[in-house]
Amino acid sequence: MKIPMSQSEYRQMEAHVRRVLSGDAAHDLEHVYRVLGNALRIARTEPDCDLRVLVAACLLHDIGRPAQNQNPALCHARVGAELARDYLIQSGWPRESADRVADAISTHRFRSDNPPKSLEAKILFDADKLDVCGALGVARTLLYQGHHRQPLYETRDGHILQKGGESFVNEYNRKLCHLYGGFLTKEGARLATSRKQAAEAYYQALMEEIEFGREGLNRLELEN
Amino acid sequence: MKIPMSQSEYRQMEAHVRRVLSGDAAHDLEHVYRVLGNALRIARTEPDCDLRVLVAACLLHDIGRPAQNQNPALCHARVGAELARDYLIQSGWPRESADRVADAISTHRFRSDNPPKSLEAKILFDADKLDVCGALGVARTLLYQGHHRQPLYETRDGHILQKGGESFVNEYNRKLCHLYGGFLTKEGARLATSRKQAAEAYYQALMEEIEFGREGLNRLELEN
Repeated sequence: MKIPMSQSEYRQMEAHVRRVLSGDAAHDLEHVYRVLGNALRIARTEPDCDLRVLVAACLLHDIGRPAQNQNPALCHARVGAELARDYLIQSGWPRESADRVADAISTHRFRSDNPPKSLEAKILFDADKLDVCGALGVARTLLYQGHHRQPLYETRDGHILQKGGESFVNEYNRKLCHLYGGFLTKEGARLATSRKQAAEAYYQALMEEIEFGREGLNRLELEN
Repeated sequence: MKIPMSQSEYRQMEAHVRRVLSGDAAHDLEHVYRVLGNALRIARTEPDCDLRVLVAACLLHDIGRPAQNQNPALCHARVGAELARDYLIQSGWPRESADRVADAISTHRFRSDNPPKSLEAKILFDADKLDVCGALGVARTLLYQGHHRQPLYETRDGHILQKGGESFVNEYNRKLCHLYGGFLTKEGARLATSRKQAAEAYYQALMEEIEFGREGLNRLELEN
């Protein structure tokens, strides 16, 4: 797929992202590459896409993460949009193109008051969301939760809490299982659907294995 | 399943374990309960099992973890065996029974120079190992790796490293996919086999999703 961007410009942008992101296993550089790869797959079905804007938006989309990690009150999408605009203008991009990249980045984390509007913004949104679907979404969520010392599940009165607390079981039921609607491109929606079964089958097997052990424990008959 | 242990003795032992283990999501109290539940399931097929020794060994099997976390040169199985023996003797157990619990704990982490010998030791070994099989093994490994900031995979020369480094992909190929042999009880081996497919299907879906994004990226054609 021919991109109107030079090797050296791409490598400089990639090196910038590499410097900014570090030590966040769930949002590491490999996530950025997968999002870019997903986006290019989707873009093949969208001939009107501006590939130069899309590639820059994908590469730079998470550069606001470190700021949000330092201060959780900040939104990495909004911060990242400003950082990307500054970076591109300093790198010689025209203001209008830098604005289009910044717009796409600012809406990649869905907020109902600020939905993705341009085609490039919709493709970035879908490409990023696809990386939380399926087996990858399960793995990235567990890595993130391990980093934040969250457990696999929590119990109350001898039962596993399906919702509540900050466990993986809660995150799956509150968020991961509801991801598959709401994609903004036809190809993004199709790809998401093709990953749904892997996450569902995994979660079902996990719960069966957990219940097996807990069921064994329920048979414990102690003396008075 | 009738256990020759009083409610109060069990609750005291449980409270002791709860005090000792904290903040380790991969080896938390729920892991202890699942191991106990798995062990009781296996014990139903082993009529010669001393259930009092087995229950104590399961509850106490990971109490050496905090020492190993503090000093990785220590083996939590050996340390835990000594801590369990001391705890049980202080709680009024006869030396011979406390020794049998300690023996089971000291061999639950397999070392070729110190394999599980007694029936109770073999059941604990299988019950603990079962918790690293299947979907649970995947989840616990990812939580552990997230805590230690290890990535999902590493790349070299544009290819995913199947072995090498400290990623999940490495851990799966080096350890998780080889777990299903080497169980020491017939029921343990049967249960492990029943969990194998969940881990394999998950890993295959994960690699396909990762390769999909990387394959998209490979189609990037930049200008000179």
